[in-house]
Amino acid sequence: MLKLDFKKQNGLIPVIAQDHKSGKILMLAFMNKESYQKTLETGKVHYYSRSRDKLWLKGEQSGHFQIVKEIFTDCDQDSLLITIEQIGKAACHKGYESCFYQKYNAKKKDYEIVDEKIFDPDKVYK
Amino acid sequence: MLKLDFKKQNGLIPVIAQDHKSGKILMLAFMNKESYQKTLETGKVHYYSRSRDKLWLKGEQSGHFQIVKEIFTDCDQDSLLITIEQIGKAACHKGYESCFYQKYNAKKKDYEIVDEKIFDPDKVYK
Repeated sequence: MLKLDFKKQNGLIPVIAQDHKSGKILMLAFMNKESYQKTLETGKVHYYSRSRDKLWLKGEQSGHFQIVKEIFTDCDQDSLLITIEQIGKAACHKGYESCFYQKYNAKKKDYEIVDEKIFDPDKVYK
Repeated sequence: MLKLDFKKQNGLIPVIAQDHKSGKILMLAFMNKESYQKTLETGKVHYYSRSRDKLWLKGEQSGHFQIVKEIFTDCDQDSLLITIEQIGKAACHKGYESCFYQKYNAKKKDYEIVDEKIFDPDKVYK
């Protein structure tokens, strides 16, 4: 049975969340063993919050849960790709569909916002 | 000017490589500041190899370079999503198009290989 390698990053592995229909990358976050187990058991994505230093059920505050569709691991078993159904249509706590809403502009040598907000964070996170 | 946050992971940020046409996720690896700068300067993706502890021009051995199309960063500026053209049609050093070729089977509680090899690693990496 294949085991994930949680050792490289102090017990954490990076996890990519991808919309299962559109293929859009919604976010990248981390899991520890506990959050991985919770994700498998519940079918809802659980991460490990590095800033809050605790288990983090995605959507626990916003209601924007991520329903697991498929889970893939890579050749080194040290990262995950999870295809999901994003409840509320937006994954980012800043109100965007995807956390990757800032695109590099080579001429300006800077990033620009290229997406539109779907919700107002002040109303969702009270 | 927006600055990436390299502090959270000891100087490294996770980077998702996505095929710019198909939207398929090809791999996840890490960059330090130097590899990020080299990637911007050359238009070819440079990672930081954690196992070899050095700058890693993707394709330097295999010829399977990754040509940068677009670069996105996320809401916390601590990860990147890069859309690329994958030279040689395969990103994984084990010969698969994507490193994420192992899919979780909930009934078996194990991962299974769900893709086919595109090249023979023994012939490409000598």
